[in-house]
Amino acid sequence: MNIEALHREYAAGTTTPAQIVEAIFARIASEGVHPVWISLIPKEQVLQRAAALQNQDPTKLPLYGIPFAVKDNIDVANHPTTAGCPAYAFTPTESATVVAKLEAAGAILIGKTNMDQFATGLVGTRSPYGAPSSVFSKDHISGGSSSGSAVAVASGLVAFSLGTDTAGSGRVPAMFNNLIGLKPSRGVLSTHGVVPACRTLDCVSIFTQTAADAAAVLDVASGPDPKDPYSRTPTPGAGASPWAAASTFKFGVPAPSALQFFGDTHNPALYQAAITALKSLGGEPVEFDLAPLLAAAQLLYKGPWVAERYAVISDFIQAHAAEMDPTVAKIINGAASYTAVDYFDSAYKLQHHLRQTEQAWKAFDLILLPTAPRTFTHAEIAESPIERNSQLGFYTNFVNLLDLSAVAVPAGMRPDGLPFGVTLIGKTLAEAALLPLADSLQRKLNQTLGGSKDLLAGTTPLKPATTPTGTLLMAVVG
Amino acid sequence: MNIEALHREYAAGTTTPAQIVEAIFARIASEGVHPVWISLIPKEQVLQRAAALQNQDPTKLPLYGIPFAVKDNIDVANHPTTAGCPAYAFTPTESATVVAKLEAAGAILIGKTNMDQFATGLVGTRSPYGAPSSVFSKDHISGGSSSGSAVAVASGLVAFSLGTDTAGSGRVPAMFNNLIGLKPSRGVLSTHGVVPACRTLDCVSIFTQTAADAAAVLDVASGPDPKDPYSRTPTPGAGASPWAAASTFKFGVPAPSALQFFGDTHNPALYQAAITALKSLGGEPVEFDLAPLLAAAQLLYKGPWVAERYAVISDFIQAHAAEMDPTVAKIINGAASYTAVDYFDSAYKLQHHLRQTEQAWKAFDLILLPTAPRTFTHAEIAESPIERNSQLGFYTNFVNLLDLSAVAVPAGMRPDGLPFGVTLIGKTLAEAALLPLADSLQRKLNQTLGGSKDLLAGTTPLKPATTPTGTLLMAVVG
Repeated sequence: MNIEALHREYAAGTTTPAQIVEAIFARIASEGVHPVWISLIPKEQVLQRAAALQNQDPTKLPLYGIPFAVKDNIDVANHPTTAGCPAYAFTPTESATVVAKLEAAGAILIGKTNMDQFATGLVGTRSPYGAPSSVFSKDHISGGSSSGSAVAVASGLVAFSLGTDTAGSGRVPAMFNNLIGLKPSRGVLSTHGVVPACRTLDCVSIFTQTAADAAAVLDVASGPDPKDPYSRTPTPGAGASPWAAASTFKFGVPAPSALQFFGDTHNPALYQAAITALKSLGGEPVEFDLAPLLAAAQLLYKGPWVAERYAVISDFIQAHAAEMDPTVAKIINGAASYTAVDYFDSAYKLQHHLRQTEQAWKAFDLILLPTAPRTFTHAEIAESPIERNSQLGFYTNFVNLLDLSAVAVPAGMRPDGLPFGVTLIGKTLAEAALLPLADSLQRKLNQTLGGSKDLLAGTTPLKPATTPTGTLLMAVVG
Repeated sequence: MNIEALHREYAAGTTTPAQIVEAIFARIASEGVHPVWISLIPKEQVLQRAAALQNQDPTKLPLYGIPFAVKDNIDVANHPTTAGCPAYAFTPTESATVVAKLEAAGAILIGKTNMDQFATGLVGTRSPYGAPSSVFSKDHISGGSSSGSAVAVASGLVAFSLGTDTAGSGRVPAMFNNLIGLKPSRGVLSTHGVVPACRTLDCVSIFTQTAADAAAVLDVASGPDPKDPYSRTPTPGAGASPWAAASTFKFGVPAPSALQFFGDTHNPALYQAAITALKSLGGEPVEFDLAPLLAAAQLLYKGPWVAERYAVISDFIQAHAAEMDPTVAKIINGAASYTAVDYFDSAYKLQHHLRQTEQAWKAFDLILLPTAPRTFTHAEIAESPIERNSQLGFYTNFVNLLDLSAVAVPAGMRPDGLPFGVTLIGKTLAEAALLPLADSLQRKLNQTLGGSKDLLAGTTPLKPATTPTGTLLMAVVG
């Protein structure tokens, strides 16, 4: 299910939003709510919403009749938010800004999806609502923390979904489910009405089958929000990406010796194939030093930023740690020992790494990395829940800390039938410029959409803007 | 002593750099090194430097032969840095970037000035090297923490000096000594080679007798520095200040009920006179709510940012607290109790206040505030060293936290012969745009320069750039 296909059907009159909603609820009834969903919007309410759309002009609603899902750390008015923790649940009176924007554009919310509790995890298994699996293998994890949001799109229950992404939660599950996973720069999508994980780093993310769909959702959902102090109002020219309109560009790749796949034997070749594909699209690979990015990642995983997770639920965790997922409780409780001095020591190191990477960016326009080094089975995660979780974030952890934009792109199937994925990483505010290239790359590497048999070739390519977003013609006179 | 006057004399051949150096050392010999200075560059070395200048082209050196001083938390190669604490002293092998730039432009370093230990204080009394006094009253404090740097300029020992400013240390002593005190936005002047106070907030500041001199020093000393991770490379258009080239502008003033002078009876009228003067220069006063700025200030003074002071000397303080100024040791030791959770809680509050103030800025181009509410005698500070220190920062504390630019401007003499001062506060990177207005305002309110009888009227006015710094003519096409 994707936006373009649905809009074609609506225009042809072969289906209606109400029929789509009925079909979705029928499938959920047969498959069960958990573990993909935590809760559904009541069917009657969704049908009323679909009916109300019939009185509106589809040409004025860019997401007319498009069913979507949101991760259960994103508020929907008068509907419980759990963040994956039943004891924490509350019922907000107001929807998150992003939800309100998507609904105003005609999208139809189906329900709220499963997640690693408090968005703490990249596995998808840290939830009392069950552990979703990759749509390609019931033995393998879905990835997380936006587990249900990825699976809901990959299994065709909705056309798009929102996740959140602090260290890779919007990208790792995209790879494991053959999806586009867009993590915009910080502050591009409002986090008002989103339960924070690390409030200074959190991004709302977008899962879709195609880059064109991600662009359509980004266009609707982004923008300044006075209710979110971390919302960003880009200045003119910010995010300028002249490479996006050029016929050639340069992309950073780590030295082969720096690559880590933690024992996986298929992904190295698929990553090389992605490099070859990007070269065929006009890209020139430039080797760069991954070390400063990995050093920044270490600060996030083994440093004081975990205190942000504690800050947000400090009252709750003191009273209810026993009602939390034990791994999540252990991780977040560890935050209490960090001092403000520890924070500043790490902040200084991060600033140093940030400047190192700014230098590195002068040699290339974007970076191409595996989205995750490998995947794991549920059993493997149960054996080593923290270490293997960390391994999943090897290529994603540093992106939010360094305020970069990223698009996870499906990058072909492994011999064992599991999907591989790569991520295009751009500078701050380059998210819109990355998407047409993500589309071209996906077309080089991939044939089917999500977990379906639908062909990517049946969708319309996403063209780069003739003048790239944010570019200015300017005359400096002062 | 000021740059313009010295250059006039050099051009006329009525004096030479060597003669100026001799005169300075003669005065210091008669007045004593302490409490203004912590250490001097050896006279022979300074004379060699002056002699070497004779082989260079004065027209190519914007600060040719200009004697200056730096606060003793700023490194000078092969000369001890104490930060006001003898037990902490070390001898760097490299000069701070700003010192190297000023020397390369022809300036002659005389020595290193006294300061509140570890730049922790606004009083100037927290030093084992003695407590400087205002050049206008031996009973009154000089202000701090850049105490000696202000007094050295006000007493005509040097033409300009560098201080540092984290919460007002470059502005409060400017008021108490009838000087221009320029605190640029964070990262405009490199802090490489400067002992940090709060590394994320510290700014190198400039003391001069005139705004034109401050502009000349800013021009030389500013610029990106790869050695300072917090150095800033302004993007084109950043700091655009169209008001600076317009004939009218709007300036924020607090509601009268929000003003605090802590018992002083002269300064309220002088502040009103400054408002009147700024109106006569084309300004329209706009009342604004001081509360979010004061709330941000509270975070600095009573919150986890003090942990930055601890982070920088954590090893030292554990071994040498007894060798520190007791007030400074007490303040910095208090930082150990803050947790990383405390830091993030405060960071979220700061972000909220930052957004509140961004809204407020839409109503005006700059802010006019008293530089300090009042001054104190040495005896008054001894009575209440912490509370009265805090009162001094009432109008300065929030500026660095909110990443604003500021120029302290002499604003007339009180009936008791002590100077009053006001500060023009601009948006980020507006420092260069503020200076011509500071010059015009000083000319409205003030007659003499520093602690001298020299007349401001004898100096050349600083004109605004015809197109203000940072302004772009731009056509948005994408």
